[in-house]
Amino acid sequence: MRGLLRATVHEAREHNERLVLATIYDGGQISRAEVARTTGLTRTTVSDVVDGLQRAGLVATIGRGPSTGGKAPILLSVPDRARLLVGVDLGDRVFSAAVVTLRGEIIHRVALPAEQTDGEDSVRLALDVIGKVVSAANGPLLGIGIAAPGLIDTTDGTVIQGVTRSWRQLPLGSLVADRFSLPVYVANDSQAAALGEHVFGSVRALNLVVIKVGVGISAGLILNGQLFGGDGFGAGEIGHTVMDPSAERCRCGRWGCLETFASTGAILARSSELLGRPITFDEAVAEFERGNSVVRSVVHDAATVLGVAVGGLIGLLHVRRIVLAGPMAVFGDPWLGAVQTAARARALGVLADDTVFTISKMDDLVMLGASALLMTHELGLQLRPSM
Amino acid sequence: MRGLLRATVHEAREHNERLVLATIYDGGQISRAEVARTTGLTRTTVSDVVDGLQRAGLVATIGRGPSTGGKAPILLSVPDRARLLVGVDLGDRVFSAAVVTLRGEIIHRVALPAEQTDGEDSVRLALDVIGKVVSAANGPLLGIGIAAPGLIDTTDGTVIQGVTRSWRQLPLGSLVADRFSLPVYVANDSQAAALGEHVFGSVRALNLVVIKVGVGISAGLILNGQLFGGDGFGAGEIGHTVMDPSAERCRCGRWGCLETFASTGAILARSSELLGRPITFDEAVAEFERGNSVVRSVVHDAATVLGVAVGGLIGLLHVRRIVLAGPMAVFGDPWLGAVQTAARARALGVLADDTVFTISKMDDLVMLGASALLMTHELGLQLRPSM
Repeated sequence: MRGLLRATVHEAREHNERLVLATIYDGGQISRAEVARTTGLTRTTVSDVVDGLQRAGLVATIGRGPSTGGKAPILLSVPDRARLLVGVDLGDRVFSAAVVTLRGEIIHRVALPAEQTDGEDSVRLALDVIGKVVSAANGPLLGIGIAAPGLIDTTDGTVIQGVTRSWRQLPLGSLVADRFSLPVYVANDSQAAALGEHVFGSVRALNLVVIKVGVGISAGLILNGQLFGGDGFGAGEIGHTVMDPSAERCRCGRWGCLETFASTGAILARSSELLGRPITFDEAVAEFERGNSVVRSVVHDAATVLGVAVGGLIGLLHVRRIVLAGPMAVFGDPWLGAVQTAARARALGVLADDTVFTISKMDDLVMLGASALLMTHELGLQLRPSM
Repeated sequence: MRGLLRATVHEAREHNERLVLATIYDGGQISRAEVARTTGLTRTTVSDVVDGLQRAGLVATIGRGPSTGGKAPILLSVPDRARLLVGVDLGDRVFSAAVVTLRGEIIHRVALPAEQTDGEDSVRLALDVIGKVVSAANGPLLGIGIAAPGLIDTTDGTVIQGVTRSWRQLPLGSLVADRFSLPVYVANDSQAAALGEHVFGSVRALNLVVIKVGVGISAGLILNGQLFGGDGFGAGEIGHTVMDPSAERCRCGRWGCLETFASTGAILARSSELLGRPITFDEAVAEFERGNSVVRSVVHDAATVLGVAVGGLIGLLHVRRIVLAGPMAVFGDPWLGAVQTAARARALGVLADDTVFTISKMDDLVMLGASALLMTHELGLQLRPSM
């Protein structure tokens, strides 16, 4: 939620509206009196603000709660479909979009193959996939949240630099906003994933790092309850941190980046080399599950190097919640365990002992994260972290 | 500055007071009309708040500015000595304390040797050094800010775990507050250094990392204009991140921590070994300046490993301002240059190309940082970062 840096009357009202709305959203079912207690606002202010939110259809009454002596209080809630979110994941292989409720439930989805598209074609395809869900939405749309790989200016929705696509200074946000006349927000896919876990996931933490491991490796950082992008939106781009300059060449042109050790591409290259035959990712997963010792050892080594990077991250940020996601997460607990062991071995005990490592339980994490990006910006809604 | 999470009338007033005070502090000399424009508050609110601040002696009028047609406006400022700060640096070798103005000027200082003290003796010595400056202060004291090495709970001023001293769960903040009946804030020394650079230094950046390199190595992180401590106050404790587990044993019990490569102790051990005789730090500095190739190469190697760690930090946070400080900074530009080269070689170009590396120009950085800790908490004062 935006701070009240300029406490004008208008902004004070907007601040109060967001505070009341967030309190009702977070409370699930809550009386006006309880909203006043939680927010510190007066009963009169709360009633005024609630009236406005009801007129806007963002808050509804849902019956009466238990009486505590006097009249049973009217309970308020934010209906799950008071507004609908469009969440978009412009992935390397597939462009997906969905209509999502304010609780992160997907009610309609579209996915189109996108592996071979680039340039104007890829933009057209993105507008196409978004158009399909926008026209299918059966209710008031709040706007569109988009996630894509690469360096993205979240303030204006420009893709500064893509990863697998040649996107450079692409004004994706304004292209989509112009087409659909809706508010649009764009963020990097890993940053969106972190926001998705923070807003719709089960981890209610003030600080949280989500690391997506697939063809690329990058992290999204929630620090003090906010997405942290750094000075130039690139925070979390750990995939091209050099782990060992004497190791293999990376697609970025340097040697021994984290991706050359711990990505899906890295384990496939290493497994193929050791097995003496090319192997697909699905085959690698099948061999891993059958207990193939070569593949298991390759995955273990990849997880260990990732753990070294994660250990450095814990030593720097002292963040206790690390969530791993992405295609590599299919290797499950053995992979997670190796990451955790290596991370703990690398960071100071007093920092790493309490760290909790998990694999994200959310399907469609990036797409839901894109929806969360929209929702937090437009309405300021998210579950309160437990401290 | 604290966000207005609970917008009660009382807190709104306190918020406005802090906003107006910070605007006048930051402006240097500023009229009421300009304060209203900058803050977005009404002229009436600004006048009310300024009256209160004048009665409290925090704001003074300093004559009239140039007329822009009508009556020449009265200019306001925050007098440098409107309140006095006590800043304390409980270092490994020396306990220092000073009376500091609101602009970070030291007007009285005391330093006592503390190398051999521990336990109750060291607490007594700390109270002693603080008492000397408190009684010498010639003006209204705002409170006491304290910095010490180790893991420190900044919310209640408890030293959770010291470094060279055996402090464990030491309620330093409340011991000092009880003795002097003043507000007291305590933070880790590197975190204080970062705040000192942010509040009193020349770098007006929203994100800033200060890395102190001496016997120990640790960083202080200013993220989004705030000191970031992580989930357990340990953010920035990079000195015991393992860089190479096959390397030398560290005092922490593990092998190959950053400190074993890049600290003052590391370069002394390595130089002594290569020179075949024990060498002190002052001798090493003299040999370095004379161009001794052994010492120069040892310092270069130490800087390179530090640069690897800094490269990881940039890759994770995309922070563009890196300030180096502490005893190792005496090796100046050659050392700084080697850190920079190694950091740039390790992080993705698009992230590291714009990063500015400097050595802190502030003497007494930790002590001034402790004063800044007090000032930001009690008055919300700091220079506005340029964006």
